[in-house]
Amino acid sequence: MVKKPVRSFSEHEILALLHKKYAKTGTGIKKGIGDDAAVIQPGSSGEYWLITTDMLVEGVDFLREWTTPRQIGHKSISVNLSDIAAMGALPRFFTVSLGLPPGISRHWITEFYRGLNHQGSKYGAVLIGGDLSSSSESILISITAVGESVGRKVLYRSGAREGDALYVTGTLGKSAAGLKLLLSGHARTRTPLKREAVRCHREPEPRCQAGLWLAQSGLVRCMMDLSDGLSTDLPRLCKESGTAAEIDSCRLPVFAEAAGWDMNPLYLALHGGEDFELLFAVPESKSSVLRKNYPDDLPPITRIGKMVRGKGEVWIRSGKKNRHRLKNLGYDHFSQKPF
Amino acid sequence: MVKKPVRSFSEHEILALLHKKYAKTGTGIKKGIGDDAAVIQPGSSGEYWLITTDMLVEGVDFLREWTTPRQIGHKSISVNLSDIAAMGALPRFFTVSLGLPPGISRHWITEFYRGLNHQGSKYGAVLIGGDLSSSSESILISITAVGESVGRKVLYRSGAREGDALYVTGTLGKSAAGLKLLLSGHARTRTPLKREAVRCHREPEPRCQAGLWLAQSGLVRCMMDLSDGLSTDLPRLCKESGTAAEIDSCRLPVFAEAAGWDMNPLYLALHGGEDFELLFAVPESKSSVLRKNYPDDLPPITRIGKMVRGKGEVWIRSGKKNRHRLKNLGYDHFSQKPF
Repeated sequence: MVKKPVRSFSEHEILALLHKKYAKTGTGIKKGIGDDAAVIQPGSSGEYWLITTDMLVEGVDFLREWTTPRQIGHKSISVNLSDIAAMGALPRFFTVSLGLPPGISRHWITEFYRGLNHQGSKYGAVLIGGDLSSSSESILISITAVGESVGRKVLYRSGAREGDALYVTGTLGKSAAGLKLLLSGHARTRTPLKREAVRCHREPEPRCQAGLWLAQSGLVRCMMDLSDGLSTDLPRLCKESGTAAEIDSCRLPVFAEAAGWDMNPLYLALHGGEDFELLFAVPESKSSVLRKNYPDDLPPITRIGKMVRGKGEVWIRSGKKNRHRLKNLGYDHFSQKPF
Repeated sequence: MVKKPVRSFSEHEILALLHKKYAKTGTGIKKGIGDDAAVIQPGSSGEYWLITTDMLVEGVDFLREWTTPRQIGHKSISVNLSDIAAMGALPRFFTVSLGLPPGISRHWITEFYRGLNHQGSKYGAVLIGGDLSSSSESILISITAVGESVGRKVLYRSGAREGDALYVTGTLGKSAAGLKLLLSGHARTRTPLKREAVRCHREPEPRCQAGLWLAQSGLVRCMMDLSDGLSTDLPRLCKESGTAAEIDSCRLPVFAEAAGWDMNPLYLALHGGEDFELLFAVPESKSSVLRKNYPDDLPPITRIGKMVRGKGEVWIRSGKKNRHRLKNLGYDHFSQKPF
């Protein structure tokens, strides 16, 4: 399962190229390339419609040996739903294209679609179409999800301002801890906490309800989901907003239990990918209203820092110590070996 | 480039399973799984919106050796636009997910997006998003296109009735002739007709204007595009319509020039895939009006047969001779070796 070596340019560079050449607004387009989902406005529709797409490749995004077909279905749709959640919208529909190598059983296929459909339905997304192809050796999955805004209230990555408070939902680094456990052979662990971390990696839950609440609250200025790790995703939010950010390592909702497994919870929280938690900025003046009104039955939110003046930099400080620049060590598809 | 062997079930069987389990209509869904594109109706929108997706895998759907990145971009978006054309709608937006193996140059990537964007723009489709992934050895392309109906006039595969006249646009079998030329080493031929066949295979044109005209004419009962070959696609239209069909081999608009290249034009027209022409049924009473009104500047249309009583069978006759059942020898992703 060792991936082939690094190439001469990064995912970031390709995205920058696409952003520069093809990021268009125009008739019916509220937001094109450059956010968690594209936002379009059908001719006479009152709502905005959101479109997002993700590709999962066996050996890169999952291993068949570690994961049941139902779990793969669950995860594939969840990563797309998370992009809809990150815009504060409601999932509605999805399509799936599937590339199958020889030797895939009928059982695998039906279980995959079962996982996909079960998880989609849970959040209101209905399977409406797709495509089938053969592939030479890896399973290929490409999903496109369509969401609908409620009253045109959509949150973008841009919009944060200097001084805004920065928040995240849930715990950071748990999925990366789960991946590390799997990598070291703990696919079938009996410890509840380890099982939880592994489940978090294999069957992530998109933060749809929290995203919708935050968008509807009118308190939030910008939002995105954490798919590649805080140190990779936060600079994206900063760049789109034309600011920098400063986070306080003591405040991060790390997965502390990982320390007992010979892992560094802070490192996992900063650089581990696939948490699918929400990252968002709130004006300082509305921060206490947010904390007061945020529902108890949604995943907890934690203030992790603030937006500061700058151009995309992310600073980290530990309590009152001097701050230093945070290195981007999150996931890049073209410069890392996932397995 | 030899693909791994056949598996124990066909593409058709998987599609049937999905159709049975997941073909839903419901709030906002006019047509789910089972047509060229899904048809949805945003809450308060006057138009229908169409969503279609196609996956192209290197070694299955194209070879890098034979095709420039710009041609691959052109073809990838064209196959999706063809699905929108087949419903009689206008292309509007598209997303692209790209899986790249090591060693792909920056030039390849920029040229691919150039081909994609140029061909999309030509038909009114704007790139609004996508995803990037790495892959172990093959280039993977997954595109989702979004179309818009004009005045809710959309044509489905269902709707044909016994006695309807059956038509196609353009020429059948030209793309398959082009593929055969490529397979026998004619990638750079200087004969204009051979070049045309090869271009037809590498850079197909979706029949968007013809599809839109046919849907708006009010004369057509059902329509689909020919992507896997007439002998595979026509039974699909018949099944969705609850009829059978009878085609007259003498009437088929074959690519006659292929006979001089040691190929059988009739076989190519019946079983060759990737023509991306439109197949549609018209009430007998409206057939002459259609021929009279159909614009000269659109790809020509040819009457190839009629719909008859039955359950999905396709019969073929040659002039006044006895008819026989047409075997389904078109393309199935899971039982054929494309290269």
